[in-house]
Amino acid sequence: MSQPFATIAIVGLGLIGSSIARAVRQALPDTRILGYDRSGDVCARAQALDLCDGYHAEFGPELAEAQMVILCVPVGAMAVAATAMEPHLSAQTIISDVGSCKASVLTALRSALPQAVIVPAHPVAGTENSGPESGFASLFKGRWCILTPDDRADVEACGKVAAFWQALGANVETMDAAHHDLVLAVTSHLPHLIAYTIVGTASDLEGVTQSEVIKYSAGGFRDFTRIAASDPVMWRDVFLSNKDAVLEMLQRFSEDLSALQRAIRWDKGDELEALFTRTRAIRRSIIEQGQDDAKPDFGRTHQ
Amino acid sequence: MSQPFATIAIVGLGLIGSSIARAVRQALPDTRILGYDRSGDVCARAQALDLCDGYHAEFGPELAEAQMVILCVPVGAMAVAATAMEPHLSAQTIISDVGSCKASVLTALRSALPQAVIVPAHPVAGTENSGPESGFASLFKGRWCILTPDDRADVEACGKVAAFWQALGANVETMDAAHHDLVLAVTSHLPHLIAYTIVGTASDLEGVTQSEVIKYSAGGFRDFTRIAASDPVMWRDVFLSNKDAVLEMLQRFSEDLSALQRAIRWDKGDELEALFTRTRAIRRSIIEQGQDDAKPDFGRTHQ
Repeated sequence: MSQPFATIAIVGLGLIGSSIARAVRQALPDTRILGYDRSGDVCARAQALDLCDGYHAEFGPELAEAQMVILCVPVGAMAVAATAMEPHLSAQTIISDVGSCKASVLTALRSALPQAVIVPAHPVAGTENSGPESGFASLFKGRWCILTPDDRADVEACGKVAAFWQALGANVETMDAAHHDLVLAVTSHLPHLIAYTIVGTASDLEGVTQSEVIKYSAGGFRDFTRIAASDPVMWRDVFLSNKDAVLEMLQRFSEDLSALQRAIRWDKGDELEALFTRTRAIRRSIIEQGQDDAKPDFGRTHQ
Repeated sequence: MSQPFATIAIVGLGLIGSSIARAVRQALPDTRILGYDRSGDVCARAQALDLCDGYHAEFGPELAEAQMVILCVPVGAMAVAATAMEPHLSAQTIISDVGSCKASVLTALRSALPQAVIVPAHPVAGTENSGPESGFASLFKGRWCILTPDDRADVEACGKVAAFWQALGANVETMDAAHHDLVLAVTSHLPHLIAYTIVGTASDLEGVTQSEVIKYSAGGFRDFTRIAASDPVMWRDVFLSNKDAVLEMLQRFSEDLSALQRAIRWDKGDELEALFTRTRAIRRSIIEQGQDDAKPDFGRTHQ
C-alpha cells in the first residue's frame, strides 16, 4: 500500500497513540513517526518500546515536517495542545484527532487553529488499559473509524486521512459531528456511564461487603467492571464535552428502566420475557457483523 | 477423588445441566448420570452428545436410584418439577438445585417435598448461551458455588453436596438464603437488568438506526449485549422470584445514576473523576482473585 503521509506526528502516546504508532510501523513501515507527550516519563517509556522515530515533551520546529498531526489526548485537552503546536505547524499540515466527541473538538480546534486543514476522526476501538505499554498494532483491524469533516474540510485531505485509517485495517465512515455525537452517546458514552455507576453502587452497599461483590462477580457484574476501569480523565472529559447527547440518552434509559422496574413490581412476566427475547437478536447481529467475538463469554479463558 | 454419589439425576439439560454432566464425566467418571428434560428434543440432543447414562422426558421409578437430584430448570419451574418427581423419590435422596435465587426456591421445594433432604446450591457461573450443546466441563473451575441450607438441612448431606461441587472444580461457600439473594441481586441480577434495559433503549431510538448501533458497538455497548443475550425465561423468573432485593438494588442504582447525571449537567468534573478512579480498583481486585481474565478486553481476539 502506498503511504498517505511521509511523516506523521502523534500527540499523546497512551493506549490509542501508541497503538497507532505500532500499526503504522507494521502497515506503513516507511512512514516517519514523530512522538509527542507532555510527560517526559511517557516519552521515555515509548522510546524504550521503540514506538516512534523521535520523542518530544514539547512542540518544536520539527513539527513542521509532519503532513498529518493526530491528537490522541483527552478531549478536554485538545484546545491546549492545539494552541501549543500552532507556532510550529506548516500551513499544509492536516490536523486530525481520535477524540470520542466530535462537535466540541471541532470547535476547539477551529478556535485554536483558524487557518488549519482539520479532519476530525474517531476510531471506535480501545481497551480498558492506559499508557504506551497497553497499545497493540491490531487494535483498529475490522473496527470502524468515523470521520466528521465540516463544510470547510478539504476533500483531498479527507481522502488521505481515510486512506491512512484503511491502511491500519479500519473501515472508514463519514458523518456529521452532531450525528456522530448522538450515535456514540448510545453506543459508547451511556454504556460507560452506566458501568461506572453500577460499580460505584456495588461498592457502597452496607449489607453486602466489597469482598462478596468481588467473589461473586462472575454472575454478570464483572462484565461492567472492564469498561469502568477505563481512563478516568478521558471519560470525565467525554461526558462534559458531549453533555447534551449524553443527558438525552440517560433520560431515555432511565424511563426504560422505570418501565422495567414497574413490570417487576407488578409481576408482568410477559413484558419482561418479550424484552429479553428482543435483545438477544442484537447480540447476534453484532457477532455476524464481526464487531464482537463469536466465542461464548467474549472468548474468556475457561480453565 | 472418591465420588460423593454413585448415581445423580440432572433435571434440565441446558447450559448448566449439561455442563454439570460433562464436568462429572471428567472429574467423577464412575458416577452414573440420569438425565431428565421435559423436552424430548433436548433429551435427544443430550443423547447425541453422550452426556448422561440415561435420558428421560418424564420421571419414573429409576429416579429412586439417584442419591442426589439437581434441578437445573428456571427458578419459576422448580415447584412443578419437584411435584412431578415426588412420587418417584427415595426418602434418602438429596434434593439440590442451581437456581439464581435461593429463598423462593427453598420455599417452593419445601412446599412440594415437605419430607425431603434439601440442600440448595448456586454455582455462580454461566455464559450467554443456552441448550445442551453450549455446556462445557470447565465452566465451574475456580468459580464459587454457594450453598444455602436452612436450619432443617442435614449436615452430612451438605458436606456431600459441597464435596460434589469441589470435585467439579468450584470453591464452596455457605450463607443463608436471604443474604445470598441480596448479594446476587447486586453481582448478577441488577447487571442483567441494566444490560437488558440499555440494549432495549439503544434499539428504540428514532435518531440513530439499529445498524449504526451494531456498527459502532465496539465503543462499549457490545459488552452489555452479551449478558442481554442470556436465556429470557430464566431471567424473567429470576427478577420475579427475587423481586424485593432486585427492586432495592435498582433503587440505589437509580439514585446513584441521578447523582452522576446532575454532576454532568453542572460540570462537576472532579466528582466524575473521583468516581471513575475508585471503580478502577474494583476491576483490579476481581482479576487478582481470579474471577476474570487478566488479558485486556476480556481476552477477546484482536486480529
